[in-house]
Amino acid sequence: MNIIVDAMGGDYAPEAVVEGVVQAIKEFDVKIALIGIQERVEQELRKYDYPHERIQIVHAPEVVGMHDPATVTIRKKRNSSISVGIELLKNSPAQYDAFVSAGNTGAVVAASTIYLGMLPGVERPGIGLVIPTLTRLAFLIDVGANTDPKPEHLLQSSLMAKVYAQEVLGIQDPKIGLLNIGEEDSKGTDFSKDAHHLMKERLSNFIGNIEANEIFTGTCDCIICDGFVGNIAIKVSEGLMESAAALLRREIKKSPLAMLGAVLMKSRLNHVRKYADYTEYGSAPLLGVNGIVMISHGRSSPKAIKNAIRAAMREVEHNIISTMIKEISPAS
Amino acid sequence: MNIIVDAMGGDYAPEAVVEGVVQAIKEFDVKIALIGIQERVEQELRKYDYPHERIQIVHAPEVVGMHDPATVTIRKKRNSSISVGIELLKNSPAQYDAFVSAGNTGAVVAASTIYLGMLPGVERPGIGLVIPTLTRLAFLIDVGANTDPKPEHLLQSSLMAKVYAQEVLGIQDPKIGLLNIGEEDSKGTDFSKDAHHLMKERLSNFIGNIEANEIFTGTCDCIICDGFVGNIAIKVSEGLMESAAALLRREIKKSPLAMLGAVLMKSRLNHVRKYADYTEYGSAPLLGVNGIVMISHGRSSPKAIKNAIRAAMREVEHNIISTMIKEISPAS
Repeated sequence: MNIIVDAMGGDYAPEAVVEGVVQAIKEFDVKIALIGIQERVEQELRKYDYPHERIQIVHAPEVVGMHDPATVTIRKKRNSSISVGIELLKNSPAQYDAFVSAGNTGAVVAASTIYLGMLPGVERPGIGLVIPTLTRLAFLIDVGANTDPKPEHLLQSSLMAKVYAQEVLGIQDPKIGLLNIGEEDSKGTDFSKDAHHLMKERLSNFIGNIEANEIFTGTCDCIICDGFVGNIAIKVSEGLMESAAALLRREIKKSPLAMLGAVLMKSRLNHVRKYADYTEYGSAPLLGVNGIVMISHGRSSPKAIKNAIRAAMREVEHNIISTMIKEISPAS
Repeated sequence: MNIIVDAMGGDYAPEAVVEGVVQAIKEFDVKIALIGIQERVEQELRKYDYPHERIQIVHAPEVVGMHDPATVTIRKKRNSSISVGIELLKNSPAQYDAFVSAGNTGAVVAASTIYLGMLPGVERPGIGLVIPTLTRLAFLIDVGANTDPKPEHLLQSSLMAKVYAQEVLGIQDPKIGLLNIGEEDSKGTDFSKDAHHLMKERLSNFIGNIEANEIFTGTCDCIICDGFVGNIAIKVSEGLMESAAALLRREIKKSPLAMLGAVLMKSRLNHVRKYADYTEYGSAPLLGVNGIVMISHGRSSPKAIKNAIRAAMREVEHNIISTMIKEISPAS
């Protein structure tokens, strides 16, 4: 297996990316093509001892900034690590299996859509996210690719999510729910009602609306929403966990007894933190494009990069693209 | 001061409501008109020892279910505690100051809009919520009244939020932000961009877009969004805190040392829990209607009801309605 990795993407690139890639080739049976400014990548690689034949460097002189406007960038920076990486995946499908980037999400989505094209029957890409719940893992889509979708796009995302949950997460007959502001069919905006109606008519495993307080309970395996709402939901969760942890640390410091208590609880707290840390589950697959693309959090650590590579490998192993095509074709 | 309270509203009504009302009259200088099925309310009140002259019962034979469709209910159940309570506020402004309900939110919004009417210059009501942040309290609006707003509605909500933050929360020159999926002006849906543009043009304290991970950091005092997104944001937060707490309890039970640690941390953990519990801050004001209406969480405890009454009293003390009218008039 051969995974293309954007060496220049992410807040801590290329350092964190290169470190994650080195970890990945040591742990997994995989080859990596690192795309980026050759000198910088070589400089980072020199820090590590690793099997050189399993990492290839592909020079890409331009870098897309984390806040550059997406579509403009793709047109103007044709030699960026994102464009070069995705073109490589497109043009050498026999040689490369997937593309992983912690870079500018909008640019990765735009480049993937332009260069790889869409799967038959899918009109818009969606970014999924594997999230931990009280019972098992769940899959939330879309967390930011398509902020103004049509109901049909949510149906298409549902079918892709179903395949992802079955194949990659190993969930039999995943339950599919529409993220909405009330349980009743009649709740929400006109868009929610239309999407609900369409999903009810066309999906065998549709359990109806689910409210946002149920995202983490495990009530539902595939949680479907538009990219604006999904992005808000994920970022609220991130922010809340960080603020709650900061608040807790502040309070604990006020009491020596509580500090001792925290030490005693440390291993269990770490267990919770590890479970709650979704970079453990391998970042966010971009679904709907004709190729395996994995988007990692901008703040990805080396471990997150390694896990994103593993997640991409799982998609490859499970032939997720051809399974999705089969799932979607009869419905479209 | 005389506050009208819906005795029949909420998952634990009338028990929790009556208990909260009794607590309120003992702690605050206030009279209460309890609206509901007279017999049931009397039965509950008999459990307590309290100054009888400060609680009046107003009989309302009908009850709106927590999941009844809102507008239908208002038309059909004209003798519900919600309709009777709000009509009382409308018709006897010299006698009553505010209405508090933990009942069906949609029905409270519909009845308030129909009976009380809107403030001049405000087209749609919005439900605000006082939330704790790492630095001080903040105000999020809308959490569910207006799910498909126009940009103008967000501008009107901003002006009302500013008054609420200044007068009730005591924040000088509150910073106003638009909840969006990116910081740059160009981010989000067409709706977000239009709202951003209008707010930038018309609000002196507008700080631009804020992302959902900043809701709880205290970056911004008034966070403005549509009612769908606000509802999702709040319910994700509720659900995540509950799931994280459940997960933590489960992990702690696996280790006697961690259990001891939890005991030592208890007082600090309780402090955090109390700070994070937004029922402490007095529930959710319905802004934009011509009267003071406070919506309490369906799961309100007696303490939450008491705090909602206190929050309503603060709005009355600060003449919030006339201050809002002054703030909005020049802008509209």
